[in-house]
Amino acid sequence: MSILVIGSVAFDAIETPFGKTDKIIGGAAAYISLSSSYFSNNINLVAVVGGDFPKDYIQKIQSVGVNTVGLQIKEDQKSFFWSGKYNYDLNSRETLVTELNVLGDFDPIIPDSYQNCEYLMLGNLAPAVQLSVLERLNHRPKLVVLDTMNFWMDIALDDLKKILAKVDVLTINDEEARQLSGEYQLKKAAQKIMAMGPSFLIIKKGEHGALLFHENRTFFAPALLLDQVFDPTGAGDTFAGGFIGYIAKTGKTDFDTLKTALVYGSTMASFCVEKFGTENLFGLTQEQIQERFNEFKIMVEY
Amino acid sequence: MSILVIGSVAFDAIETPFGKTDKIIGGAAAYISLSSSYFSNNINLVAVVGGDFPKDYIQKIQSVGVNTVGLQIKEDQKSFFWSGKYNYDLNSRETLVTELNVLGDFDPIIPDSYQNCEYLMLGNLAPAVQLSVLERLNHRPKLVVLDTMNFWMDIALDDLKKILAKVDVLTINDEEARQLSGEYQLKKAAQKIMAMGPSFLIIKKGEHGALLFHENRTFFAPALLLDQVFDPTGAGDTFAGGFIGYIAKTGKTDFDTLKTALVYGSTMASFCVEKFGTENLFGLTQEQIQERFNEFKIMVEY
Repeated sequence: MSILVIGSVAFDAIETPFGKTDKIIGGAAAYISLSSSYFSNNINLVAVVGGDFPKDYIQKIQSVGVNTVGLQIKEDQKSFFWSGKYNYDLNSRETLVTELNVLGDFDPIIPDSYQNCEYLMLGNLAPAVQLSVLERLNHRPKLVVLDTMNFWMDIALDDLKKILAKVDVLTINDEEARQLSGEYQLKKAAQKIMAMGPSFLIIKKGEHGALLFHENRTFFAPALLLDQVFDPTGAGDTFAGGFIGYIAKTGKTDFDTLKTALVYGSTMASFCVEKFGTENLFGLTQEQIQERFNEFKIMVEY
Repeated sequence: MSILVIGSVAFDAIETPFGKTDKIIGGAAAYISLSSSYFSNNINLVAVVGGDFPKDYIQKIQSVGVNTVGLQIKEDQKSFFWSGKYNYDLNSRETLVTELNVLGDFDPIIPDSYQNCEYLMLGNLAPAVQLSVLERLNHRPKLVVLDTMNFWMDIALDDLKKILAKVDVLTINDEEARQLSGEYQLKKAAQKIMAMGPSFLIIKKGEHGALLFHENRTFFAPALLLDQVFDPTGAGDTFAGGFIGYIAKTGKTDFDTLKTALVYGSTMASFCVEKFGTENLFGLTQEQIQERFNEFKIMVEY
């Protein structure tokens, strides 16, 4: 079934304890699209890049079945650029450069052919932009998933609260959940956040796994223990892509389906972090994905 | 079946964001004994206290079925005393006072009636003291579980390595596993530590759950999300008590049994942190324990 993905497509320059890249392809919507392409062949991208964005990368995205009719190319401008450096434990990072460029006045235009998409993934962007997407759809999608970050809680909390009231699923990390709710205990934090709108809440804890909350129920999926975590950039977006991809594949939005979707999201994220940027999201096989998915089950069964 | 518990029985003074205690009862062996008493009626304590230790507390320990023949009382000395203050997130703490007192020259004497214990829990103490216990037993127990901490890695690493070579299960936290192995990735760290001796390794991650390693297998148990975490003191020891208690109850030491034991350990720890000190470890019912044990299963099932 069809998925509409909105977010950034951008350049990243990344430094980790294991190496350093020049400008490589990044952006929330790139990771989300690539990750969800393993679950759906009807993915529709809305994003904006500058004239400096390599055409062959757009072709690579198209080659995995992503529809790029909604990808605006502003030939006379530059693409969004982010550069960051991870600390030795990969759990924290320092932003070195943020150049908004085309993203500064991003006006997300929804092509008519995208209007009936059933699943909407609002990747991390200014909440006002995310809200405009919802307003421009003729029909509300079956499920709306929102990703955001602490930056918007700091500078655009009112806008964020407006969009929160309109979505079904929110994905944030544990620190952000504490900031947004003002509660330290995640159980209390989750109740307060769900009262703001979303009926499902996902709290991502990186190497410590992810939690899914719904009403008074809680589900937990651990993170796999990998031989090597190389670059955490995009892990959260890759997670979101696997999550909404699996939901779209099944066509169901009940708690049990979302639990399994959480594990598929974690599965995809585990591939992402093994190499730089989006590199490891090309050419995975369904067998590889299934094998790793099964490892999650083995890890918690008793 | 019979369990031999060695460790400190002591006074603690605790300050958390939720309150402050005067001297209350603490010490690794107190938590371990109380916690394991819900699984076994043959628990044999070896520890030392001073003349200042309240006799009625010893009676309370006896009242849950713990044998205190091996509890030395040095009437003219003072009990071990620790005082600490937790930060607002309860994840880190500052030690305010450590008075070794009777623990400074603790000579763990094993009563003859304890000699045939089948399960040995070596609570956190100087590794040389832990080693002397093993040397004084006529028969090696069926399973030896060792708890230790970063302090001994800093000042008594050689002794620690000697005892590590002789135990079956080691329990430490994630930071300690990284320190002991020199590896950041827990999967690699676990392999290095198991090569030092223990065939099972438990890595405790506090609010992020606990991992059990054995050969190339990994099991993970989350931590329950509690309404209120009040005081984390003794959580690791209470965990160890539930863990070895369940093993002693079943009489089995295979990986599957240890997986379930890990969940019972986590169950007991979740009760411990809800009140100050050992307070919540008195008067629990088997139904309460079973109910909470079941919550762990629900949390990871999909």
